[in-house]
Amino acid sequence: MKIALAQLNYHIGNFESNTEKIIQYIEKAKSEGADLVLFSELSVTGYYPHDMLERKEFVAKANLFVNEIAKKCIGVAAVIGAPTINEGERGKKLFNSAIFIQDGKITSLHHKSLLPTYDIFDEYRHFEPNNKFDVVEFKGERLAITVCEDLWDEQPTSNEFGKDKLYQTSPMEELSRLNPTLVLNLSASPFSYNQENWRKNILISKAKNYQVPIVYVNQVGAQTELVFDGGSVFINSEGEVVKELAYFEEGFKIVDTSYIGKKELQDKTGYIEKIHDALVLGIRDYFVKMGFKSATLGLSGGIDSAVTAVLAVEALGVENVRVLLMPSKYSSQHSIDDARELAENLGIQYDILKIQDVVDAFNKDLQPIFSGREEDVTEENIQARTRGIFVMALSNKFGSILLNTTNKSECAVGYGTLYGDMNGGLAVLGDVYKTDVFKLAHFINREKEIIPENSITKPPSAELKPDQKDTDSLPDYNLLDEILFDYIELNKPPEEIIAKGFDTEMVKKVVHMVNINEYKRFQAAPILRVSSKAFGFGRKMPLVAKY
Amino acid sequence: MKIALAQLNYHIGNFESNTEKIIQYIEKAKSEGADLVLFSELSVTGYYPHDMLERKEFVAKANLFVNEIAKKCIGVAAVIGAPTINEGERGKKLFNSAIFIQDGKITSLHHKSLLPTYDIFDEYRHFEPNNKFDVVEFKGERLAITVCEDLWDEQPTSNEFGKDKLYQTSPMEELSRLNPTLVLNLSASPFSYNQENWRKNILISKAKNYQVPIVYVNQVGAQTELVFDGGSVFINSEGEVVKELAYFEEGFKIVDTSYIGKKELQDKTGYIEKIHDALVLGIRDYFVKMGFKSATLGLSGGIDSAVTAVLAVEALGVENVRVLLMPSKYSSQHSIDDARELAENLGIQYDILKIQDVVDAFNKDLQPIFSGREEDVTEENIQARTRGIFVMALSNKFGSILLNTTNKSECAVGYGTLYGDMNGGLAVLGDVYKTDVFKLAHFINREKEIIPENSITKPPSAELKPDQKDTDSLPDYNLLDEILFDYIELNKPPEEIIAKGFDTEMVKKVVHMVNINEYKRFQAAPILRVSSKAFGFGRKMPLVAKY
Repeated sequence: MKIALAQLNYHIGNFESNTEKIIQYIEKAKSEGADLVLFSELSVTGYYPHDMLERKEFVAKANLFVNEIAKKCIGVAAVIGAPTINEGERGKKLFNSAIFIQDGKITSLHHKSLLPTYDIFDEYRHFEPNNKFDVVEFKGERLAITVCEDLWDEQPTSNEFGKDKLYQTSPMEELSRLNPTLVLNLSASPFSYNQENWRKNILISKAKNYQVPIVYVNQVGAQTELVFDGGSVFINSEGEVVKELAYFEEGFKIVDTSYIGKKELQDKTGYIEKIHDALVLGIRDYFVKMGFKSATLGLSGGIDSAVTAVLAVEALGVENVRVLLMPSKYSSQHSIDDARELAENLGIQYDILKIQDVVDAFNKDLQPIFSGREEDVTEENIQARTRGIFVMALSNKFGSILLNTTNKSECAVGYGTLYGDMNGGLAVLGDVYKTDVFKLAHFINREKEIIPENSITKPPSAELKPDQKDTDSLPDYNLLDEILFDYIELNKPPEEIIAKGFDTEMVKKVVHMVNINEYKRFQAAPILRVSSKAFGFGRKMPLVAKY
Repeated sequence: MKIALAQLNYHIGNFESNTEKIIQYIEKAKSEGADLVLFSELSVTGYYPHDMLERKEFVAKANLFVNEIAKKCIGVAAVIGAPTINEGERGKKLFNSAIFIQDGKITSLHHKSLLPTYDIFDEYRHFEPNNKFDVVEFKGERLAITVCEDLWDEQPTSNEFGKDKLYQTSPMEELSRLNPTLVLNLSASPFSYNQENWRKNILISKAKNYQVPIVYVNQVGAQTELVFDGGSVFINSEGEVVKELAYFEEGFKIVDTSYIGKKELQDKTGYIEKIHDALVLGIRDYFVKMGFKSATLGLSGGIDSAVTAVLAVEALGVENVRVLLMPSKYSSQHSIDDARELAENLGIQYDILKIQDVVDAFNKDLQPIFSGREEDVTEENIQARTRGIFVMALSNKFGSILLNTTNKSECAVGYGTLYGDMNGGLAVLGDVYKTDVFKLAHFINREKEIIPENSITKPPSAELKPDQKDTDSLPDYNLLDEILFDYIELNKPPEEIIAKGFDTEMVKKVVHMVNINEYKRFQAAPILRVSSKAFGFGRKMPLVAKY
């Protein structure tokens, strides 16, 4: 049988565009001789519509478009993803369904059984789990049609509790009793660099274990924080990946299950390159799907804003990125020079706005209220917030989106000013530790110097008071990032981190900083997620808690 | 049997304080002759610890404190709430448990079956549902011990899909087969004014239906956004409420199930008074539990900041509230006078800071970049953001928390400036529609004029340009709020709202404004929730969606 894998970029709630795309690929599959074309999970709505699923008219509209797609699907079969109504007496109102279409009609529904409800997943909020299993007989094959998590019932990564199976049921156990000859999987599995092989390994192990080939189609493209990386595969019953679609872009491929031919795999890339590609796609899709073209940001001469600017240019084009240099009296001349050099290397429009007059005006007005009190973080924040107003003014006046340049290390320890440098519509590096920001900078400079070497090599500084260095109040980033990774990604207890050989006080201080800064992250811009545990809705911590 | 109802205010993760309180009330119950004392859901950790439940050391610590409580519980039995480990091979790692303690030992565990995962509830993220049911024989009674939602399996309110039962299992059906003589329920059910009787009615219907008395103990106190209102009850087997504890404060009462005596109920209060009490408690607990004493805010002379200031004074005391008046050249003299009059009526410290010098400095610096362009919302935002910096400077310098004064109507349609008047650590009125803010103002003034009458009667205006009125860009608040309520609280499709007789274009415009402003709400301060559907983590909408 010839199966087409359609790995597409959907837009949540944009039924017209998603439907048009699906129909177009149904036509393509048919014209290229496929028997069946497989799309990804919730392809009609885009993954994930969140509480739009609580709106009756949203679900009704999805079903209208499913019917429209069905009508166009003649001469080739298709499996698409959409929410369907649970007609039962009990339970959540919806199913997360794979819909099998033949000859212009819906011939069967296959509801998802295992509903991920952890990290960034929230499916039990909206969907009732399925507990009935069957296979579809189609052109001599017995197809087991599954939706994403149904293929893996393992605990999510970094589970310190050590239990093996997350769910009571195992759809693959149930389905394997029905002797399927082929497993289809509609997926929406977001990228994270430290889980990159985990997904493929699970698929391989399932194919091997059940001795059945698997066709896996993943969503591609970004939806605000989440970047879906594609990488759809066909795996034979020996557990070998024999066909693999591109990462971070749309793809289409027809697989002949009876004659597999030579392997077609993607080139291996390093994790920094993958993060780079994920961030560029994340920026681009945010703008495209929000209907914006241009970005703005403040260039400080430091490495974070430099890397953000480069990624923005790659995503949006030189003509759509405009930056502000906003030196204060504490800014070193080399910072200004580095920022200007970067802007010139990139060929982007830049302006220089000195913040001192405004800062002086603030301080003068506040003087009667503050008289007799020492300078403290208040005055540092006024500088950061003045810059925040300047870049937002540019953003407002020219209808561009402000990109936030905070990295994950800063975000973790609260090293940033709310309503100042934490401003922005999208946080590009908010899930990238500082040590990886350095690696990104080297990756960007791999062929020629785009980011001035000095921005990379000089000691990081916020330049909010004389001779300030990040290391005045933080450990070295090498140490800091390892502690943060253990605490945030791996959920390790502080005692375990200390037992690795870190200084007790340092670990306690870092953990304390992470915990007390939830209130800042609560108001942070959405963060492009590239790790297995990003700040944002995948890590909900109480604010008023005592730790 | 004599059962003590202990309705207490816990602090999430503050095991020491929660344990001390629980032990103190165990002693009290014992000394007053109770056989058993009942606490609320997850009382040892406080409800709700969110992803702290993913940390092994957090759960281990909870269990240590449970054991400590058990040791102290001699001569009286107790039922407390805590997470316990799921020792099974499969499923989530934890149970949400009621723990029965007698003679210094844990004698049985009763895990929650129905795990609410909708609106602000997220329990399936962390807990495995229970499916084994039993009763506890204790002093001649057969106790059915249930946790919160186990008593009600109805769909949440405002379900446009119209299905009746949210869950596959019904713990009360299961338990009733075991002939319980008394139902105990440990609860953590947050307040919302438009669901206030819903909870009590469900308890009444269950008691009647199963002809069994119910002892219901609810948590009281606020945890960031959520305000738990207490109102614990004893309901007899005829479904009559015979004892009722206070709302919005801690309470303790011993009920003799064999001799009920006269009814002891709370006075009825109107919904505006309840909202008022919820907000005062919400502010107070945020400060107490975050370890802060004092608040600051900007007083504009308008009604929102006036009501917020009054609530802050009630919650924190006159000496702990300090305000800034920040007139611009567009501020009317009466606004300044109204603000000053309010501050004087309340007796709070206030300062006047004119924003014009700073605004001029911003505009002067931006002039070369903006030259040739019309004034637009950019310049309005600069004013709002300049005020935002001033109040944050006060907050930083004096270690106080900025209270945000945005109301729900504004928050819904995006009528507010990010990093300007949207600043704040806590949004006091973010779940109160403008029309209810007026009612709150009248309630506050019920005995004497605290809020100047003029602040209440004048047409609302942001005063960011000459003669600006809210109605320039928004419908009248009476109309706006009804549309918003139907769309947000009731999830009605726009067509249904139009069918009620509203102007089609107006409804479409309002719905569009709600939808396109998710990005602003994403970065908003935490909002004290008083309705059945507040903005915040109980209403997650995708940002990049097309509606």
